Amino acid sequence: MKPTVERYRPIVGDEIVDEIYEIAHPLRNKHIVHLNSTYQGGGVAEILQTLVALMNDVGIRTGWRILHGTPDFFEITKKFHNALQGNDINLTDKKKKIYEETNERFSSFTHLDHDLVFVHDPQPLPLIKFYAKKQPWVWRLHIDISKLNNGGLDLLNYLKSFILRYDAMIVSMEKYKKDMPIRQEVIPPSIDPLSSKNEKLSSQTIDRYLNKFGVDRDKPFITQVSRFDKFKDPEGVLRCYQKVKEKVDCRLVMIGNMASDDPEGESIYRRMITQYGDDPDVIFITATNNVLVNALQTEAACVIQKSLKEGFALTVSEALWKKTPVVASNVGGIPAQIIDGVNGYLVNPKDINMCADRIVKIMQNEKMAAEMGEKGHEIVKKNFLITRHLKDYLLLFGQLLQTKQCDNTPQ
Amino acid sequence: MKPTVERYRPIVGDEIVDEIYEIAHPLRNKHIVHLNSTYQGGGVAEILQTLVALMNDVGIRTGWRILHGTPDFFEITKKFHNALQGNDINLTDKKKKIYEETNERFSSFTHLDHDLVFVHDPQPLPLIKFYAKKQPWVWRLHIDISKLNNGGLDLLNYLKSFILRYDAMIVSMEKYKKDMPIRQEVIPPSIDPLSSKNEKLSSQTIDRYLNKFGVDRDKPFITQVSRFDKFKDPEGVLRCYQKVKEKVDCRLVMIGNMASDDPEGESIYRRMITQYGDDPDVIFITATNNVLVNALQTEAACVIQKSLKEGFALTVSEALWKKTPVVASNVGGIPAQIIDGVNGYLVNPKDINMCADRIVKIMQNEKMAAEMGEKGHEIVKKNFLITRHLKDYLLLFGQLLQTKQCDNTPQ
Repeated sequence: MKPTVERYRPIVGDEIVDEIYEIAHPLRNKHIVHLNSTYQGGGVAEILQTLVALMNDVGIRTGWRILHGTPDFFEITKKFHNALQGNDINLTDKKKKIYEETNERFSSFTHLDHDLVFVHDPQPLPLIKFYAKKQPWVWRLHIDISKLNNGGLDLLNYLKSFILRYDAMIVSMEKYKKDMPIRQEVIPPSIDPLSSKNEKLSSQTIDRYLNKFGVDRDKPFITQVSRFDKFKDPEGVLRCYQKVKEKVDCRLVMIGNMASDDPEGESIYRRMITQYGDDPDVIFITATNNVLVNALQTEAACVIQKSLKEGFALTVSEALWKKTPVVASNVGGIPAQIIDGVNGYLVNPKDINMCADRIVKIMQNEKMAAEMGEKGHEIVKKNFLITRHLKDYLLLFGQLLQTKQCDNTPQ
Repeated sequence: MKPTVERYRPIVGDEIVDEIYEIAHPLRNKHIVHLNSTYQGGGVAEILQTLVALMNDVGIRTGWRILHGTPDFFEITKKFHNALQGNDINLTDKKKKIYEETNERFSSFTHLDHDLVFVHDPQPLPLIKFYAKKQPWVWRLHIDISKLNNGGLDLLNYLKSFILRYDAMIVSMEKYKKDMPIRQEVIPPSIDPLSSKNEKLSSQTIDRYLNKFGVDRDKPFITQVSRFDKFKDPEGVLRCYQKVKEKVDCRLVMIGNMASDDPEGESIYRRMITQYGDDPDVIFITATNNVLVNALQTEAACVIQKSLKEGFALTVSEALWKKTPVVASNVGGIPAQIIDGVNGYLVNPKDINMCADRIVKIMQNEKMAAEMGEKGHEIVKKNFLITRHLKDYLLLFGQLLQTKQCDNTPQ
């Protein structure tokens, strides 16, 4: 069904819906464009799917364009992504050349006459250099850039030659701000409570999906929903499950796909299968299926997010929204979503025992788990739904566009 | 390097370059947009890569947008594609619904204020239904739709509800025209003589690439460049090579990738590996590498295109451009490129002996092969280069836009 703001009223309440209409009013008929580099896979595309539709619904003519790139280009921007997350990088001239030329080429057939241009993440960042800038440009970064090593610092310095041309930069957490002479806003990402991944499922649907994928219900299960990538520490999750299992008989469901371009991820996956493939209580699922993820997050006794790095980790909000307590590493955007002991637990990403202990606590105390679930739902409802996200963007657009209008008034 | 029309002058001559400028003149500053569904992989994206750049170069503000779709959607449009090529299809309401809804959704955030809209192939065909049409719309089909069975006829009848809203439809061959009340133009596709796949390579580069991929040069080789897909008949090529081998000692290089979503293709590939994996003179390459393809087409004694179906088969023009004779099936657009006995041979797609016989003829007669190569180059130069293609499009745009301007003159 077509997303409209009105459909969110029963879920989020009148106040924010009315506010959205009010803030959108002076922006009606403005022409805004979002630019990112993928329309499926990943949180950014998922957010844009709904956000762009809602912006159009409130009367803003909102476009969405995808940067075209070759596999070479995406290999480089993946390295950039990892370097901004703390990896090292060898920032060669060849990388810079391919990065900039891809953007230049895209700019040659992408005519931007919009009132505002909204660029997501590093892939299309250099675009701004190839336009005669006629409107405010906003850059939205979804990565935790708080810890950079030397390669990452080099990269950021290079990227500044593009970033500082923008009118504003948006990050997900206060701690991601950088010492740069540019307006910086903190706007966390969000989940869509009406998407197939987050809408309320009937118990029949839940049963059907869990049965179909072999998740028996004779004992409770815990789950991590994440790519099999070292930053998500899937092997740590398995070790943690072994510890939990000493105290509580349960299953572990690991659902995620393998980044096809990630040889390291492939060897992790193979190791996991070799070590745990014989344990009938460990279930690996590589299907991409939003309803199944929804069912797993809804029915799990506890959701785990043992990541070593996270831009924000919307999987945490997804689980909390379904009233499931979450035990997760105290990294990236996770502490914005979990209040330790209130709606789950924050753990040291290197401490397997601590993580297992917290999971056991939740599994052995049903009443506490239910209370945590309620509180998690409330926290997400207040802070991490798409309506709040939309409102924050509209407020920023209003400020940026008014500023521009003022500039045009006669002196 | 950025493609400009001027760079083609030394290759195609002054006449067509000057004509292009002249035809483009009244179109300058017009705003045109191309819409297709992929920006890499496949001939359409390859053409647009150059064509869009050249249209901008001659002063037409030309955009290029990609339809966003889910894997479900692309599975359906692939079935549509195959049905238009002669396969059967079960045209359910569910398929129609996903097909149309994906287009509707894309239209909701794709604002088309252009002077002309140019839609490629069936995926984005329904878009026109979701706009208040304010400008000429052109639909370009790249498929051979001359032979439809009942399912294909049903499908075409359904698609007519979109096609007939367009101002013109472009097909690649006269025989692809259909009895429909809409302007139909024949404009064949083209190759880019300056792309890495077609530019002239130094003999050092050729040696480096062929060595790297294990193509020894102590005997001549023949090659087919095509996906391992049943419509390209790779198993027929192998049988043909066996026959050739009885007369001429040679190698066969099969280069192509496997459509990852094609289980039939996968089993074909496995069968081929099982049957021919031990023959050191049969080389399978699955890498995607334009320079390698260029080197193979340049150095092959003969290029084969044993397809059962083809929209046009630009691989034929690619090989001919490199002065290599081609033996190819008399299907689709191939007879437009090959004059039997002049620049190669046309063969019955089911006749392995005939195909092998023609290859042997070419391999045993070096002088004739060289003459055929020269003639092939001339035919491509005259008919199948991107400059001719650009000129044809500009002529059509001029007609469509003038018509519209006339409509606006006072009565």
